[in-house]
Amino acid sequence: MLLDGTDQVASTGADLGLLVGKMNNTSLATSEYASIVNMNLFVALLCACIVIGHLLEESRWMNESITALFIGLCTGVVILLSSGGKNSHLFVFSEDLFFIYLLPPIIFNAGFQVKKKQFFRNFMTIVLFGAVGTAISFTIISYGAINIFKRMNVGSLELGDFLAIGAIFSATDSVCTLQVLNQDETPLLYSLVFGEGVVNDATSVVIFNAVQNFDLTRITTSDAFHLIGNFFYLFITSTVLGAGAGLLSAYVIKKLYFGRHSTDREVAIMILMAYLSYMLAELFYLSGILTVFFCGIVMSHYTWHNVTEKSRVTTKHAFATLSFISELFIFLYVGMDALDIEKWSFVQDSPGKSIGVSSILLGLVLFTRLGHTQLRGNAIMITSTITVVLFSTVVFGLITKPLVRLLLPPSKGMSRMASSEPTSPKSYVVPLLGNERDPEAEPGQERPVLYPSSLRVLLATPSHTVHYYWRKFDNAFMRPVFGGRGFVPYIPGTPTEQSVHNLIPEEGN
Amino acid sequence: MLLDGTDQVASTGADLGLLVGKMNNTSLATSEYASIVNMNLFVALLCACIVIGHLLEESRWMNESITALFIGLCTGVVILLSSGGKNSHLFVFSEDLFFIYLLPPIIFNAGFQVKKKQFFRNFMTIVLFGAVGTAISFTIISYGAINIFKRMNVGSLELGDFLAIGAIFSATDSVCTLQVLNQDETPLLYSLVFGEGVVNDATSVVIFNAVQNFDLTRITTSDAFHLIGNFFYLFITSTVLGAGAGLLSAYVIKKLYFGRHSTDREVAIMILMAYLSYMLAELFYLSGILTVFFCGIVMSHYTWHNVTEKSRVTTKHAFATLSFISELFIFLYVGMDALDIEKWSFVQDSPGKSIGVSSILLGLVLFTRLGHTQLRGNAIMITSTITVVLFSTVVFGLITKPLVRLLLPPSKGMSRMASSEPTSPKSYVVPLLGNERDPEAEPGQERPVLYPSSLRVLLATPSHTVHYYWRKFDNAFMRPVFGGRGFVPYIPGTPTEQSVHNLIPEEGN
Repeated sequence: MLLDGTDQVASTGADLGLLVGKMNNTSLATSEYASIVNMNLFVALLCACIVIGHLLEESRWMNESITALFIGLCTGVVILLSSGGKNSHLFVFSEDLFFIYLLPPIIFNAGFQVKKKQFFRNFMTIVLFGAVGTAISFTIISYGAINIFKRMNVGSLELGDFLAIGAIFSATDSVCTLQVLNQDETPLLYSLVFGEGVVNDATSVVIFNAVQNFDLTRITTSDAFHLIGNFFYLFITSTVLGAGAGLLSAYVIKKLYFGRHSTDREVAIMILMAYLSYMLAELFYLSGILTVFFCGIVMSHYTWHNVTEKSRVTTKHAFATLSFISELFIFLYVGMDALDIEKWSFVQDSPGKSIGVSSILLGLVLFTRLGHTQLRGNAIMITSTITVVLFSTVVFGLITKPLVRLLLPPSKGMSRMASSEPTSPKSYVVPLLGNERDPEAEPGQERPVLYPSSLRVLLATPSHTVHYYWRKFDNAFMRPVFGGRGFVPYIPGTPTEQSVHNLIPEEGN
Repeated sequence: MLLDGTDQVASTGADLGLLVGKMNNTSLATSEYASIVNMNLFVALLCACIVIGHLLEESRWMNESITALFIGLCTGVVILLSSGGKNSHLFVFSEDLFFIYLLPPIIFNAGFQVKKKQFFRNFMTIVLFGAVGTAISFTIISYGAINIFKRMNVGSLELGDFLAIGAIFSATDSVCTLQVLNQDETPLLYSLVFGEGVVNDATSVVIFNAVQNFDLTRITTSDAFHLIGNFFYLFITSTVLGAGAGLLSAYVIKKLYFGRHSTDREVAIMILMAYLSYMLAELFYLSGILTVFFCGIVMSHYTWHNVTEKSRVTTKHAFATLSFISELFIFLYVGMDALDIEKWSFVQDSPGKSIGVSSILLGLVLFTRLGHTQLRGNAIMITSTITVVLFSTVVFGLITKPLVRLLLPPSKGMSRMASSEPTSPKSYVVPLLGNERDPEAEPGQERPVLYPSSLRVLLATPSHTVHYYWRKFDNAFMRPVFGGRGFVPYIPGTPTEQSVHNLIPEEGN
C-alpha cells in the first residue's frame, strides 16, 4: 500500500508528450524516420572519427580534424552514390546549428583553457595583428580580386561583392588553430595566432557591416573615423559583456555556496551563464565570439576557483569534451558538404574557370592570410571557397606539425606529457617556437632565447607594467569580492582531493 | 614572416558559413531575432530556477522541480499579458526537443547513478510491478473512463480513445521520481519506484501499439499471448541493445587506452555511444528509455572503471549536470505551457465539464497510479491532462518529502551528507523506507528491520542466488574482457588521485 501511495507521487510530472511521441513512432516512417536514420549515422561517424583519429595519432602527419574531413569526404561519396547523385550530406547545414550550438562551446573552452598570462602579455600584439592585419589583408584581397577577376570575366560581380570577398577571406578561423597548434608545445605562437583570430572576428564583423552600409566609392575621413570608432565600441562592449557574465557567475557562486548542496548546480550555473553571455551578445549585435571568449577567461580566473574540487575537474574536462565534439562535428560536416552536387553542377560548364578562381583566391589569401567562407549566390565562388578550404586545411594542416617540429630546436623535446600544466615562467620573453617551462622543474637545462622580435619586446614592455598594476588591483579589490585562487572561504563539507577517489557510483556487484 | 606562414595554416578550416551567418545578423530583425530573444529569456530563467531553487532548498516543502514549475507559471502569466493573450510560452514544444535532446540524458544518468546491487536484487519485483501493475492500471482506467465519461457526454470518444486514455495514464513518469525521492535516503523505495517506471515505459509502448493494431472488441487467447510475447521481445531486445552499446564502449576504451593521450576522447566516446544506443532503439522501434537506462548501468559497471581518474569525476558530474538541466528545462516548460490560451479557450464553453473530467481522471489514476500525457485532438482531454499533471506534481510533490520524513524512523536521521557514497551493505533485507548504511561505518547503531514485505522477501531470495552466479560469471569472464573495477591494467601516464589537484588551468594570473 505504501509503495502504491508514493508511486503515485513519483509518477507525476514531466512526460508531457511522452506517449504522443510514441504515437508518432508508429507513423514515423515518413520524414522523421529519415532524420533518425541520419542522426544515427552521424553519431556513429563521430565515434568512428574519434577511434580512427586516435589510431592515427601516432602518425605525425595526421591530426583529428583531417581524419574527420576524410571520413566526411568518404561518407559523402557513399551517400552520393547510394542516393543516385542527389545529395552528399546527412543534414542541411544551418547557420543556427553552427552559431547557436557548435561555435559557442569551442570558443568558450578556448578562453577557459587559454594561458591567460601569456595571452595578456601579448595583448597589444594580438590586437594589432587582429585589427591592422585584418584591414591590410582585406585591402589586398579585395584589390586583387577586383583587378584579376574582372579580366577573367567571372559572372557579374559588383564592387560590393569584391569587398565582401575581401572581408570574408580576411576573416581567419579560430577553430582550426586549436586543432593544429599545441598550447603546451608552442605557447607563444598559439596565443598570438589564436588571440589574433578572436580579435579578427570583431574586426571582420565591423568591416563587413561597413561594406554593406557605407558607400565605399567615396569614403570620407569622418567615415573612416566612424569605422574605427565602431571597432572600438564593438570590441569594448563585447569584452565588458563577457567579463560581466563571468564576474556575475563568480559572485553568485561565491555568495551562495552551491557546492554545499550539489556540485551539479555549480557546473550548471557556469554552463548556463557562459551560454547566456554568448546569446546576449548576439541579441545586441555584438561579437559573440569575443564575448564568450572573455567570459571563459574570467570564469577560469575567478569562478573556477570558487567551486568545489569535483566541479573543477568536471568543468575543465566537460568543456574540453564539448568543444572537441563540436569541432569533430564541424570537420565531418565540411567533408560531406564538399561533395554537394548542387553547387558543383553549376560549375560543370566552366571547370577551368573555377580552378582558376580557386587558385587566384588561394594565392591572394596566401599572400596575406588564409580564410574562407561560403559565399551567397555565385556557385563558382562557393565551389572555389570550398576548394580553398579543403586544400588549405588538408595541405597546410598536414605540414604544420612537421614544420613546427623542424623549426623547434630538437633539445626542446616534444616528449613531455601534455597532461601536466606548465607553471608560471619567471621570464616573460619566451621564444616564439618553444616550450614554456618552469625553470625550477629542470634546473640543469638552459632556456634558449630564440630571436625575440624587437616589435614584440617593444609591445610587451608596457603591457608588463599594466600587468603589474592589474595584479595589485586584482588582489586588493577583485579577488576579495569575486573569489579566485586563494580567496575562497572554507566551505564545510566541501570535497577535497582526498575524497575524489571515493566517486565510484556503485560499490560491489 | 614565420608567424605569417603558420598563421595561414592556422586560419584554415571550419568556419564555413561563419560570415554568411554574420550577413544574416544584419537582417536578423525578422523571425530569427525573436528566437534569439526567446532563448535568452529561457536560459536566464533556467539560471533563476537554479538560484531560487537553491535558496528555497532549506524549506522542506519545496523541491527544484516545483520551483521551476512556479517560475514557468509566473513567466507564462507575464508573456500572456505582454503578448495580449496570444500565447504563454517561449517555444513551441516539439516532441523532437523532448525525445531527442531532453529525455536521453535524464534516463541515462539515472541508469549511470543507480545503485545496481539494490536494483538487481529487486529486479523481479520491479518487473512484476512494471508489467503486471501497468496492465492492471490500464484496465481500471480504461474501464472507469468508458463507464463514467459516456454518462457525462464528453464529446465523441470511441472505444479506441478510451483505451488510449488508459494506456497513457497508466504510464508512470521516471523523471519525477528522481526529483522527489532521494536514492541515498530511501534506496529501496527509490529503486523500486524508479525501476518500475523504466519497465513501465516498455509495457505502455506495447499496450499502446496493441490498442492501435488489434481489434480489441474481440480479443482471442492467441492475441493475448502475442501481446505478452511482444512485451518480452521489446524488453529483451531493448535491454540487449543498451547493454551491448555499453560493453562495446568498455571494450573500445579498454583496448585503445584513450586516456593515454586525452581524457576528453574517453568522455566523448562515452557520451556518443550512450546517445547512439538511444537513437538506435528509436530506429528499431524499441523502448529507447529501457535501452539507454541499461546502457547507463553497463557503462557505470565496466566502462567507467576503464577510464582515467579525471574522466571518472568528469563523467559522473557532467552526466548529472546534463540531466539536471534537462529536468529543469522540462518543468519550466510545463509551467509555461499550462497557461497556453489556445487549449483553454476550447474549454471556456464548459468549464464545469473540464473540471469534472479532470477530477474523475485524477480519481481513477489515484486509485491505480498517477500518470499523464498530452492527448491529441480533444481539447478537454488536453486541459484535463495538464490539470492532472500540475495538480499531482505540485500537491503530491509537496507532500512527498514530509511524508517520507514522517514514515522514516527519526533515529535514521537525514543529517548524513549525500556526497559520500554508501558502501555495500552486508544484509540484503533492507527496510523499504530507511537508510542503507555500511554497518562498519557506524558499528554502534542497530539496523532496524522494518516490516519486510513477505512478497519482496520471496522474490528477493531467488534473485540473490542469481546475483551470486552473476558475480562468478562477471569475475571469470566479463571483467577480464570488458574491464571494470580491479580489472584495469596499469596505463603509463594515467593520472592518479594525487594529480587531480594539479588541474588548475593556469598558474598565476
